Amino acid sequence: MRAIVLAAGLGTRFRSEKPKVLHEILGKPMLWYVITNVRNGKIDEIALVVGHKAQEVMEAFKDENLKFFIQKNPKGGTADAVLSAKDFFASYDGYVLIINGDSPLVSGETIRNMQQFIYMVKAYEGVKLGGVVLTAHLPDPTGYGRVLKEPGTDRVLRIVEEKDASAEEKRITEVNAGVYIFYAPWLLEALYSIKPSRATGELYLTDVVEYMSKKGYEVRSFMAREPSEVIGVNTRWELAIAENLIKLKLIKFWTDRGVTVHFPETVWIEPDVSLENDVEIFPGAQLKGKTKVGKGSVIGSGSVIVDSTIGRNVRIGEYTVVERSRVEDGAVLGPFARIRDGAHVRSGAHIGNFVEVKKSVIGEDVRAKHLAYIGDATLGKGVNVGAGVVFANYDGKRKHESFVGERAFLGSNSLIVAPVKIGSFSFIAGGSVVNKDVPDYAFVISRPELRIIPEKGKKFLDK
Amino acid sequence: MRAIVLAAGLGTRFRSEKPKVLHEILGKPMLWYVITNVRNGKIDEIALVVGHKAQEVMEAFKDENLKFFIQKNPKGGTADAVLSAKDFFASYDGYVLIINGDSPLVSGETIRNMQQFIYMVKAYEGVKLGGVVLTAHLPDPTGYGRVLKEPGTDRVLRIVEEKDASAEEKRITEVNAGVYIFYAPWLLEALYSIKPSRATGELYLTDVVEYMSKKGYEVRSFMAREPSEVIGVNTRWELAIAENLIKLKLIKFWTDRGVTVHFPETVWIEPDVSLENDVEIFPGAQLKGKTKVGKGSVIGSGSVIVDSTIGRNVRIGEYTVVERSRVEDGAVLGPFARIRDGAHVRSGAHIGNFVEVKKSVIGEDVRAKHLAYIGDATLGKGVNVGAGVVFANYDGKRKHESFVGERAFLGSNSLIVAPVKIGSFSFIAGGSVVNKDVPDYAFVISRPELRIIPEKGKKFLDK
Amino acid sequence: MRAIVLAAGLGTRFRSEKPKVLHEILGKPMLWYVITNVRNGKIDEIALVVGHKAQEVMEAFKDENLKFFIQKNPKGGTADAVLSAKDFFASYDGYVLIINGDSPLVSGETIRNMQQFIYMVKAYEGVKLGGVVLTAHLPDPTGYGRVLKEPGTDRVLRIVEEKDASAEEKRITEVNAGVYIFYAPWLLEALYSIKPSRATGELYLTDVVEYMSKKGYEVRSFMAREPSEVIGVNTRWELAIAENLIKLKLIKFWTDRGVTVHFPETVWIEPDVSLENDVEIFPGAQLKGKTKVGKGSVIGSGSVIVDSTIGRNVRIGEYTVVERSRVEDGAVLGPFARIRDGAHVRSGAHIGNFVEVKKSVIGEDVRAKHLAYIGDATLGKGVNVGAGVVFANYDGKRKHESFVGERAFLGSNSLIVAPVKIGSFSFIAGGSVVNKDVPDYAFVISRPELRIIPEKGKKFLDK
Repeated sequence: MRAIVLAAGLGTRFRSEKPKVLHEILGKPMLWYVITNVRNGKIDEIALVVGHKAQEVMEAFKDENLKFFIQKNPKGGTADAVLSAKDFFASYDGYVLIINGDSPLVSGETIRNMQQFIYMVKAYEGVKLGGVVLTAHLPDPTGYGRVLKEPGTDRVLRIVEEKDASAEEKRITEVNAGVYIFYAPWLLEALYSIKPSRATGELYLTDVVEYMSKKGYEVRSFMAREPSEVIGVNTRWELAIAENLIKLKLIKFWTDRGVTVHFPETVWIEPDVSLENDVEIFPGAQLKGKTKVGKGSVIGSGSVIVDSTIGRNVRIGEYTVVERSRVEDGAVLGPFARIRDGAHVRSGAHIGNFVEVKKSVIGEDVRAKHLAYIGDATLGKGVNVGAGVVFANYDGKRKHESFVGERAFLGSNSLIVAPVKIGSFSFIAGGSVVNKDVPDYAFVISRPELRIIPEKGKKFLDK
Repeated sequence: MRAIVLAAGLGTRFRSEKPKVLHEILGKPMLWYVITNVRNGKIDEIALVVGHKAQEVMEAFKDENLKFFIQKNPKGGTADAVLSAKDFFASYDGYVLIINGDSPLVSGETIRNMQQFIYMVKAYEGVKLGGVVLTAHLPDPTGYGRVLKEPGTDRVLRIVEEKDASAEEKRITEVNAGVYIFYAPWLLEALYSIKPSRATGELYLTDVVEYMSKKGYEVRSFMAREPSEVIGVNTRWELAIAENLIKLKLIKFWTDRGVTVHFPETVWIEPDVSLENDVEIFPGAQLKGKTKVGKGSVIGSGSVIVDSTIGRNVRIGEYTVVERSRVEDGAVLGPFARIRDGAHVRSGAHIGNFVEVKKSVIGEDVRAKHLAYIGDATLGKGVNVGAGVVFANYDGKRKHESFVGERAFLGSNSLIVAPVKIGSFSFIAGGSVVNKDVPDYAFVISRPELRIIPEKGKKFLDK
Repeated sequence: MRAIVLAAGLGTRFRSEKPKVLHEILGKPMLWYVITNVRNGKIDEIALVVGHKAQEVMEAFKDENLKFFIQKNPKGGTADAVLSAKDFFASYDGYVLIINGDSPLVSGETIRNMQQFIYMVKAYEGVKLGGVVLTAHLPDPTGYGRVLKEPGTDRVLRIVEEKDASAEEKRITEVNAGVYIFYAPWLLEALYSIKPSRATGELYLTDVVEYMSKKGYEVRSFMAREPSEVIGVNTRWELAIAENLIKLKLIKFWTDRGVTVHFPETVWIEPDVSLENDVEIFPGAQLKGKTKVGKGSVIGSGSVIVDSTIGRNVRIGEYTVVERSRVEDGAVLGPFARIRDGAHVRSGAHIGNFVEVKKSVIGEDVRAKHLAYIGDATLGKGVNVGAGVVFANYDGKRKHESFVGERAFLGSNSLIVAPVKIGSFSFIAGGSVVNKDVPDYAFVISRPELRIIPEKGKKFLDK
């Protein structure tokens, strides 16, 4: 089996600078879902027909091992798009799947079942099919092409577009999903035989069905597992609908594997995320990129985890953002913490509210519970970071690193001026500015004299 | 055409101190939607009948160019409410729309279509209608008034309330939306002719329909475009339902204009917001008041933008709050930033996590990436604001301003005591307290001696 | 009436270390809902049959006044589970409700109605029922046991499981909710008479129905008020569905009592929360534990209130977390504030963005509007806390307290080193480190000399 994915369309209704098929669903281009589903449908050789903004689309999928074909005429129609890729199947004695790049909901399972169906018909009925058309029954078929069949059979005679349908044809509720499998030699024959539409000048793929049927190359309909599979994404509203459906499907996948998800409609989990069982995810949380979360960890409401590895029994409070970082078992983060860019939070450490950790190693059992900035630093085991502590890692020209030994105490509002090394078991008094290395066990203070001037406060009173 | 909006009801089921019609949907009183829809229905002369908490309602709509009428008797009933406004239509030879102030879902389009219908019936059938009743077919009509018609026609004979309906009448699924257009002279005649209900003493508008029908003033039914239009908001649960429907309608409006909205159910966009195409809005974001967002900008999850102007290609991260401010092209905000009250963030500036900017000008390419408070300040191009920097703009009596010249470097944890001017290209060492003006190119430091006392840290150890 | 709740199952499909019935819905174990609903159904004597992880389940419900029974054989089946509790009803001449611990949606009202039904049948028909089976009609009954009845009556003949059902039986849409009331003596007789399944060796409760029916102990079906009541929670997906339904039911309860809830699908309100009327709750807010909120208060988007008491007319902005604290009338919190662990915010105080308050008393009209940490402190009326102020309450060994008198002014970035007392009307200059007591009306400053070195800033320029 081979597959041709059609991604040449203008996507006018998206009103976008960006090619339609690159618009994202849960962090991936919609076209990625189509290609992934085709692969899950056990088809490895895939051609992508591009046209509108071809370079951008090809660039985005250059590592996906696809064969690219360019449709020259943007108004050529769907059959012309397939013809653009004729070198891909002209000498192929097998079947070819044709699917639109804006059909991210057609499942791999449905694609496998369509192939299976062809083999079954051959095996049990001895009929070599010319093609299979994926269909669904919709309560309201308005806007879709209707599937006309030989009464009492699954033999498709032709597909009629909404605008060309008679009143009677419009009453048909079986619609065309725009997904076909054709026998390649007959497909080629058909493509060379059909004529452009008199109304639009376009060559329509649906005419291939009618051609084959008339020629005696039997085409059958095959029902999608779920009617929603036929939804094509032509507007951003449909993009949102498709995203909602894919979201719930992904979440159901994880709940079946032992993950609790509260208020699934509000939760964002991207396809490359990986979760162990007994993870618990609260409303509005977002897991993005290649994030992994270990057993027993809790992701608090509204927290956002991007391309990060979270260990086991980690507790992430509300509204915590973790990006490109690693958090080990039993750490406690948030609420309102931000951990980013290569940070590594070791086992049992606590990072609390309004604390930012950037590209730093936070040792085991460190406490940094309030208002602090820790950047380009390495903190040993059990270090205590007071409220208001800042690691001044930037001197206006470049970034410098700091090292803090185990169990050091960094008093509140102190400023750690990098580059600097602070010894283990040292004690930095609150408000100090530390710009020299500190030996182990030292006490460090930089504090001006406190002057208390009686009664003078009165002059500031204006109350 | 004129319109009478009835907003005199007690709204008992809301259990509120506030008049029911002032309860808000996406930041606007529900009555605002009714008036806006009537205006969109091409009716400019509008009377508002108030009663319960009349002053509050009139105050809220005093700038809307409405004629106010007061219903004296809170238990007078709907027809009595219309009679309160009789001076509005007693000498008017035309049609009058009557709609409830708690019907925010009746669209302007439906109101236009009802008028159109009257003109068409006159033009094509030569029938001058006495009235039109807006109706809908509901699968479960329980609780609604049922519309009784002459069999096989659209001629309405009368409307029967749920509680007065026979078993057979209850099976009717066509319900009364409580929206009517009547020919004014006949309406007046009917209002003077109908009698109060024996059960409640109220005068019912539905009796006008029966009166006209008997009198030979033909009343027809007209089907609402969407059944949901008939929902009246009598409880806060219905308020939530109406809000959900209006929310999705507004979002669909924007997606059709090229805006991407992820998880539309969770996104709040108020009616006065204005968006360019290729704006992308993430789950839980809220756009309020007269906010404008330019092309290519991204609104991160859970961010709240109120009465602000956001330029093009601005990137707003998660959980960022912008109020009454202006953000220019290419600025980067958040996550966890707060920009408020007349702040002006220039092109390319970055405002990061746990930073508050109040009534300040942030110059181009400024960096203020962590934990800072910038209030009443003007920062020139390229200024660097370190973590923990605070502009002390308040001296206990009044607020003062600060000025920072271009490319100045404000070291971490330094305190800028307003009023003060800091020159361009100056460098403030970390932890400094700056309470004097600083010339361009100066180096500034206020730092006590750092004392490092070996071994003394031990006495603080308790670990 | 007595009730037996079956909570011995393995819950294999949950793939969890935790017993299935302890998995939470809105902060309470699902089993809590079953027990609460049974109690609301006017049944006080309740037996709980445990098995899998029995100790954990009993521990969690040890204060609920239940009688515990242990099912020894984890594969004994539902009837074996009931037999485990036979001492609970063997000598009881009355009716026994049997319900599964994973059926949190069966309402107290339905349980009361089932009992009522038994009494009515006795009173009006003179029939003493052997049992009542709770049923519902589902459009798609797949997976549920079907209820087979004597045609034209409500007499149940037997219940057939999906896997054992004939094609014809599968077409029955009336399904078994797994909730029964049986007359205890006949139940016991039936339990001793039925035989283990040949396929699985289990004793099925559904066989009791068939036994009784054959024996002439009449069993009738009783329809649940809402079909959703029959949903059993066997997977975490069903847990999410049940949570969504319970959430909306709780929110509807509060809207009927005069609370406004925006976007109800996104709002989390736990069962023990208590709200006055005219409270307004914005999207994504969460009210947890025994939280109370007074009239006229506003809970901003995404705010989380846990086990706290919020007074009247309190305004809580976006993304504010309040835990185990008390907030008095008219206080203003957030956005991005965190109030925790025994904090007490008095009337009219403002706590603003990036401020943490821990175990402190915040006096009336205090202002702490930006970036501060207030821990273990008592602030008098009208105190002003500048940006960047930190109460250093921890010295590395223990926590200490601070006291600040009324109308004191704590300048920005100052550090208050506990234990310390700061007098009323005193003025602490910005950047001071206060480690001594300060008398009333004093002016306090600790500030190193500011050195301004002309031109020296240049050497730091690298721009």
